[in-house]
Amino acid sequence: MTTPFPFSAIVGQYEMKRAMVLTAIDPGLGGVLVFGDRGTGKSTAVRALAALLPPITVVAGCPVNSATARDIPDWTDVKDTALIERPTPVVDLPLGVTEDRVTGALDIERALTQGEKAFEPGLLARANRGYLYIDEVNLLEDHIVDLLLDVAQSGMNMVEREGLSIRHPARFVLVGSGNPEEGELRPQLLDRFGLSVEVSSPDNVEERVEVIRRRTEFETDHEAFMARWQAEDARLRDRILAARDALGQTITSDDVLTDCARLSMALGTDGLRGELTLLRAARALAALEQAGEVNRVHLRQAAPLALSHRLRRDPLDEAGSGARVSRVVAETLP
Amino acid sequence: MTTPFPFSAIVGQYEMKRAMVLTAIDPGLGGVLVFGDRGTGKSTAVRALAALLPPITVVAGCPVNSATARDIPDWTDVKDTALIERPTPVVDLPLGVTEDRVTGALDIERALTQGEKAFEPGLLARANRGYLYIDEVNLLEDHIVDLLLDVAQSGMNMVEREGLSIRHPARFVLVGSGNPEEGELRPQLLDRFGLSVEVSSPDNVEERVEVIRRRTEFETDHEAFMARWQAEDARLRDRILAARDALGQTITSDDVLTDCARLSMALGTDGLRGELTLLRAARALAALEQAGEVNRVHLRQAAPLALSHRLRRDPLDEAGSGARVSRVVAETLP
Amino acid sequence: MTTPFPFSAIVGQYEMKRAMVLTAIDPGLGGVLVFGDRGTGKSTAVRALAALLPPITVVAGCPVNSATARDIPDWTDVKDTALIERPTPVVDLPLGVTEDRVTGALDIERALTQGEKAFEPGLLARANRGYLYIDEVNLLEDHIVDLLLDVAQSGMNMVEREGLSIRHPARFVLVGSGNPEEGELRPQLLDRFGLSVEVSSPDNVEERVEVIRRRTEFETDHEAFMARWQAEDARLRDRILAARDALGQTITSDDVLTDCARLSMALGTDGLRGELTLLRAARALAALEQAGEVNRVHLRQAAPLALSHRLRRDPLDEAGSGARVSRVVAETLP
Amino acid sequence: MTTPFPFSAIVGQYEMKRAMVLTAIDPGLGGVLVFGDRGTGKSTAVRALAALLPPITVVAGCPVNSATARDIPDWTDVKDTALIERPTPVVDLPLGVTEDRVTGALDIERALTQGEKAFEPGLLARANRGYLYIDEVNLLEDHIVDLLLDVAQSGMNMVEREGLSIRHPARFVLVGSGNPEEGELRPQLLDRFGLSVEVSSPDNVEERVEVIRRRTEFETDHEAFMARWQAEDARLRDRILAARDALGQTITSDDVLTDCARLSMALGTDGLRGELTLLRAARALAALEQAGEVNRVHLRQAAPLALSHRLRRDPLDEAGSGARVSRVVAETLP
Amino acid sequence: MTTPFPFSAIVGQYEMKRAMVLTAIDPGLGGVLVFGDRGTGKSTAVRALAALLPPITVVAGCPVNSATARDIPDWTDVKDTALIERPTPVVDLPLGVTEDRVTGALDIERALTQGEKAFEPGLLARANRGYLYIDEVNLLEDHIVDLLLDVAQSGMNMVEREGLSIRHPARFVLVGSGNPEEGELRPQLLDRFGLSVEVSSPDNVEERVEVIRRRTEFETDHEAFMARWQAEDARLRDRILAARDALGQTITSDDVLTDCARLSMALGTDGLRGELTLLRAARALAALEQAGEVNRVHLRQAAPLALSHRLRRDPLDEAGSGARVSRVVAETLP
Amino acid sequence: MTTPFPFSAIVGQYEMKRAMVLTAIDPGLGGVLVFGDRGTGKSTAVRALAALLPPITVVAGCPVNSATARDIPDWTDVKDTALIERPTPVVDLPLGVTEDRVTGALDIERALTQGEKAFEPGLLARANRGYLYIDEVNLLEDHIVDLLLDVAQSGMNMVEREGLSIRHPARFVLVGSGNPEEGELRPQLLDRFGLSVEVSSPDNVEERVEVIRRRTEFETDHEAFMARWQAEDARLRDRILAARDALGQTITSDDVLTDCARLSMALGTDGLRGELTLLRAARALAALEQAGEVNRVHLRQAAPLALSHRLRRDPLDEAGSGARVSRVVAETLP
Repeated sequence: MTTPFPFSAIVGQYEMKRAMVLTAIDPGLGGVLVFGDRGTGKSTAVRALAALLPPITVVAGCPVNSATARDIPDWTDVKDTALIERPTPVVDLPLGVTEDRVTGALDIERALTQGEKAFEPGLLARANRGYLYIDEVNLLEDHIVDLLLDVAQSGMNMVEREGLSIRHPARFVLVGSGNPEEGELRPQLLDRFGLSVEVSSPDNVEERVEVIRRRTEFETDHEAFMARWQAEDARLRDRILAARDALGQTITSDDVLTDCARLSMALGTDGLRGELTLLRAARALAALEQAGEVNRVHLRQAAPLALSHRLRRDPLDEAGSGARVSRVVAETLP
Repeated sequence: MTTPFPFSAIVGQYEMKRAMVLTAIDPGLGGVLVFGDRGTGKSTAVRALAALLPPITVVAGCPVNSATARDIPDWTDVKDTALIERPTPVVDLPLGVTEDRVTGALDIERALTQGEKAFEPGLLARANRGYLYIDEVNLLEDHIVDLLLDVAQSGMNMVEREGLSIRHPARFVLVGSGNPEEGELRPQLLDRFGLSVEVSSPDNVEERVEVIRRRTEFETDHEAFMARWQAEDARLRDRILAARDALGQTITSDDVLTDCARLSMALGTDGLRGELTLLRAARALAALEQAGEVNRVHLRQAAPLALSHRLRRDPLDEAGSGARVSRVVAETLP
Repeated sequence: MTTPFPFSAIVGQYEMKRAMVLTAIDPGLGGVLVFGDRGTGKSTAVRALAALLPPITVVAGCPVNSATARDIPDWTDVKDTALIERPTPVVDLPLGVTEDRVTGALDIERALTQGEKAFEPGLLARANRGYLYIDEVNLLEDHIVDLLLDVAQSGMNMVEREGLSIRHPARFVLVGSGNPEEGELRPQLLDRFGLSVEVSSPDNVEERVEVIRRRTEFETDHEAFMARWQAEDARLRDRILAARDALGQTITSDDVLTDCARLSMALGTDGLRGELTLLRAARALAALEQAGEVNRVHLRQAAPLALSHRLRRDPLDEAGSGARVSRVVAETLP
Repeated sequence: MTTPFPFSAIVGQYEMKRAMVLTAIDPGLGGVLVFGDRGTGKSTAVRALAALLPPITVVAGCPVNSATARDIPDWTDVKDTALIERPTPVVDLPLGVTEDRVTGALDIERALTQGEKAFEPGLLARANRGYLYIDEVNLLEDHIVDLLLDVAQSGMNMVEREGLSIRHPARFVLVGSGNPEEGELRPQLLDRFGLSVEVSSPDNVEERVEVIRRRTEFETDHEAFMARWQAEDARLRDRILAARDALGQTITSDDVLTDCARLSMALGTDGLRGELTLLRAARALAALEQAGEVNRVHLRQAAPLALSHRLRRDPLDEAGSGARVSRVVAETLP
Repeated sequence: MTTPFPFSAIVGQYEMKRAMVLTAIDPGLGGVLVFGDRGTGKSTAVRALAALLPPITVVAGCPVNSATARDIPDWTDVKDTALIERPTPVVDLPLGVTEDRVTGALDIERALTQGEKAFEPGLLARANRGYLYIDEVNLLEDHIVDLLLDVAQSGMNMVEREGLSIRHPARFVLVGSGNPEEGELRPQLLDRFGLSVEVSSPDNVEERVEVIRRRTEFETDHEAFMARWQAEDARLRDRILAARDALGQTITSDDVLTDCARLSMALGTDGLRGELTLLRAARALAALEQAGEVNRVHLRQAAPLALSHRLRRDPLDEAGSGARVSRVVAETLP
Repeated sequence: MTTPFPFSAIVGQYEMKRAMVLTAIDPGLGGVLVFGDRGTGKSTAVRALAALLPPITVVAGCPVNSATARDIPDWTDVKDTALIERPTPVVDLPLGVTEDRVTGALDIERALTQGEKAFEPGLLARANRGYLYIDEVNLLEDHIVDLLLDVAQSGMNMVEREGLSIRHPARFVLVGSGNPEEGELRPQLLDRFGLSVEVSSPDNVEERVEVIRRRTEFETDHEAFMARWQAEDARLRDRILAARDALGQTITSDDVLTDCARLSMALGTDGLRGELTLLRAARALAALEQAGEVNRVHLRQAAPLALSHRLRRDPLDEAGSGARVSRVVAETLP
């Protein structure tokens, strides 16, 4: 039962799947936050993502997954510099993880036996060039969430503790799941996630039956089920790789820049991260569709992902933030 | 007095006994939570369960009860791979247990004497393929409950602490007892238990006298009492083994899937865990009865176990959650 | 002044003395909780109990007071298995005791000097087959009270900490004193004490003068005073030993069982511990009186001890719980 | 400036001085609590007491001040058993003292260098047979106050920590100063002090000028001042020694016992500690006066010391507790 | 992506850029606090500052960046005293930094391996003669902010811990970013920052489009973009160096002193730090403009930077503190 | 910039300067507490005091600044007993100081390397015979303030921790600065400071301009400025030394004692510390003026310093405590 459920076999949940695919095309988009009540398949989806991602090329044995021998940090013991291919790392932050295991820390074993002050890399090292998943961001202590977002944004893990002063690259996409019922995230934290989506249980019997049926097949007729859906996953993986190639050539006209700015101002999002992310997300979408240029359709699809978690709460407007984004998009980008 | 009271000799409490038997047929059902006031025999029942469970086959000396030599984790010292039979493990979480004893931790003795960083497995390792019992879940610290449920669901114990980075299978049925008077569990936690039952003191003199009589016999005429009831327990154990065999062949028609979805929607349970568990529980019931196919009777019996702890509280409906499930079952699956 | 005040010389306080004598006859009754304002002689009484208790036979040097060589736990170093007689242990829980001293813990000395992970038994080991006294239960931390009650009930001390995984028998009678003014005990804890009594200062001058006189004699004419009252204590000890022999032969008719159940239901005590304890206490009383069979008089005397701390609070009934028990006893067992 | 101010040179404050003298005659009286606003000379008085107390005979070098070779605890290294005379110990509990220094603890030095688990005695050992002074009881952590009172009452220090299990006599008079403005002591704690007095600043100019004058002389004309008042202190010390001899012969008639009981009942003090202490204090007073027998005058003088801190607060009676004691004494013992 | 965005390429935000330039001219001005909502480019600006600052001359290898061999602290091992040029240090305080890494601490490695008590310098040493940047001052623990401000003001780091007693120069400019929405800073802390500025998102489409365009160019056409703007940065660096030379010769007439005092009194700023900082800031401005003498224009420009965070809150004046400063400046220095 | 600002160059603030000078004449006065808003030069003044104080004669190398070889504590290693002259110590309590560094503690280095339990003296040792300065008393933890005041009053540092039991003289003047806006000190703490003064920003332009001018000169024309004012400081130092000689001969008539008592009673100060300190402060003032005898003028000047922080708050009297002292002084000592 340790094979994850296939990404493509997830029933519905198009917004969530789109957001995840976009981060696979442009990891610089800045992470995804998945909101939703308990039991809506958030964890299943993130674990499914792991099987979908394309492999990366790394120096064999490098603790931070360096792409070339030049990138290996000087505090490692890596001698061999052979390049190998390996799956995109997806690191799962276990509950009760301690800060020293996240950032890395003094290697106690070597300190005690050899009297040396060596660095033992942590989960941030392992997640470099990959994904870091936090189930129920709400349950993590604030200072660890701050730390993770800080590293995710700067792409650099700085460790200043126990007499160590270490730096290493830690570029990863942060994926978090959260349950609004269990306490809200601070706006400051929300803003630092690139994209957000909301998921909910399907509200029609057919879709729910389909969920039960696929789940039952996954458990009782495992091999046939996997064969069918892994092929589907492979097709999506190929589209992602093609989109990565197209990304650099995708054009963003001045009109598109102006649309981004106008949309953010109309929505009153704080700061400029909203429009910068919106532009990046739209460009990744255009690349996925091999469109060559960003157009308003891409902006309209990207807007709810990039902007809904950045709205100020409006006490006079009872609509949810998703609905407010849709309405303003319709008015501003007709 | 260390022989547990026989499971079959428990007076009444049919729902609780049924839930426990179902988890013995399909351990994937996801744990049982037993609610009830103090003194209603919750602990007695769970300890009784230990004597009822069928034995398992394990590699001798394997700290995680591996079924085959292939499954032995690489961090163990197990050399011999002889297979032996042993009772299904039932691990009792003592009060004041520390997180390192639950998950396992650095073996301090070896670290100090041999300078090695070896893993010393904890209670989660010992509970693999068996049961983990928590008396008064309410008294356990939240972060340990979170951790237990997380491992119970993923079937994998991930340890990231003190420089260790260990994984090992930890598939077990979590059984918890709770007293609603001592503070509620968070809905998020409730939802992650597969089944729930409520127990209370019998409300007629005859049944209470029967309880006192059996208890008195258990204490004063121990051997005769045990002989009689252990035979009864053996019959139940045989039925469980037969049900396990039948489980894979038990059919679930599309009508049954639709019934599950309709029932959950009618009750307004959050997410999809309710209907998935309902289906599994009904199938286990059908297997216990050797029915070949799940029918509405099974769904009706399984519904209170699988759904009552997943209802949203309804301030306009004063009936308890058990009553609400019964009423909606009667309306939806006439 | 370290000789305790003689049990028989305590003026009045018949209920408290009866409860303590009953636990000496049947240690399985489950502990006594003594309530009362400050200065009512609670501590004096418990310390007096120590001198009253009959001796036990133990393996010389066994840290858990094993009765036979067979019972010695495997983690001890006990070689010699000679049997000796020693006073029933009465262990006093000092304030500020740490959890490791209660349960036992890693023997740091041996760990440091010999690199061995040996278990150093704690107060629970020392209390096996005897009494454990907690002055002012209210002042003890909740998690230690939970732990003590848990062990007292299961008769087994399970230690899971610092890499140790130890079990040893710890059957003892828990005696606690509490002051309701300093904060109440949780109902959950109350229910786990077998018996309870309430003590108060005498309300007539003669009795108070008698208290002062005996206390003054105890301090100023110590030897004569002790000679007189220790003889009295010896007579009571003989009666206890005779009662222990009679206990197994004491008959409990079905009528008595029904009386227990009816009384508990009439009082609305939660759960079944009330009637089970009531029956045991009445049987011990019958044995003390060499009555051969439990009768209603025994039930009437035992009821306040076994039931008063198990009543739900009734906001419409202003009488204390003792008075409510008496009234319902009078109505139910006329 | 380290010579304490002479006890006899304290202006006024007769009640406080009387209470302290009584504890020097009968150390079993159970400690003194001195209440008063800041700046009323509480600390000065207690430090003055040190110079007044008669010397004791001890085994040279014994860490618990044993009176005879027989009393030396077995955990000490004391070889020589010569008897010497030394001042009555007055141990000052410094602020920020840690529990291990109060009770004694593992001798870390010997543990580290010699691998032995030796006990290093603490302040309670040093205070044996003397005084322990706590300035501002209110500022001490509750658990340390509990511990001190517990030891003070039992006369025995039990240490159960860090693998040690040590007992040694610790009979001392606890003297505490407290400031009611900085938070009240729990009634439970109050009751465990034998005597209490309240001090306040003098309310007439003459007495205040006398305080300033003596203080100025003490600082500017130190030697002459000390010569004069130390002679006065010596006379008081002789009276205390004579009173100790007389104490055993001082008679307490039944009328006196009855007076004690009636007075306590009339005042409604909780428990029996009030009348037991009242009797002891009156007997010490009678011994100080070489009266041969306790009479009503002694009871009247002792009553405020022994009873005022044991009254229940009476919301209908606005008089302070001292005034209430005086009024009831006047009515009950006319 | 680790090359910072060029300082000159920041769109708008003139006040913030001016404040930062002033601290580069006169580091004694006492730090800058940048207020603003999330996403307004605070972090970007501070990181940009690093590339702008002129280099400093230091003793090679000195852990506190000493300017001459004479200044090397005696606790270092520095032997070689060659002078080298290096960039002005900009030290970034990582989240979760521990106090020992800020101040420096005992070098555990040397303590364990060589038994020596050596000092291992911390971030304050590294920041000497440079900048220390705190992102989100609000998230830092109060005691660390206090410590940083204390050192920043005294220019001296005093370490008294773990048996160390070390002093070393730590003169740096503290730059903090804060978000008023996440909790206010204590007035006491505000006052100890020399200057403050408020930043906000641009409120016109053109400027926002320009921000997106430059950011996009920075990411997609990196080299050309950097070439253009680094030249711009170099010009500003030259002006700063010229201003440093001019600073000592810049005259402050008595009229200017009087203007400073009058302005501060009119605004009712607490204490005298406001006018002292105002004068320094105005003098740095005059030096930047090579004006030779401070005039009212300089005072008017410096006033909002030096005074807005020092106003007492005025409940009757709803204008923001920036507006109040402007109004009073207009009235007082017409 | 590490040379402190000269004491005499402080503009205004006569009360504060007087209080500090008095403690230099009679260190037994008991410390000064300086109240005032932020930015009123409190820290500057205390640091200025350091340069003003006369030198002391000490045994070279003695960690507690012993005046003679006889006074060297036995736990030191001091061999050489040559006497040298050194500046009066002014010890600055850094923020974040730990209790072990204040009181001294086990010397970990020697414990680890040589297995010896040696005492490493702390800041209290270093402050002996000098000054201890706490900036912002409010920010220090209560238990450390208590400890400092306790030692300041007794003149003796008692260390009971980590198996150490050390005593050494620690006579120092405690100088604290506090900001009433940041939380009040407990009355109990206030009372233990000998003198108090309140400082505020000057309220006229001329004085404020003078402050700016002197500060600017101190920074830009440092040497000339220091030369002028250090001469001024030297004159004041000579007057202090003369006053110390005169102190012993200064007469205090009975009328003066009576005036002290009457004034304190009229003000209703708690306890007697007020009048004792008033007398000492007045005597130090008389000595400073070489007056030979204390007169009412001295009392009038000393009264606000010695009494204002000892008044009970009077809710019906809205005047500040300084004003209340002045009014009562005018009435009582016309």
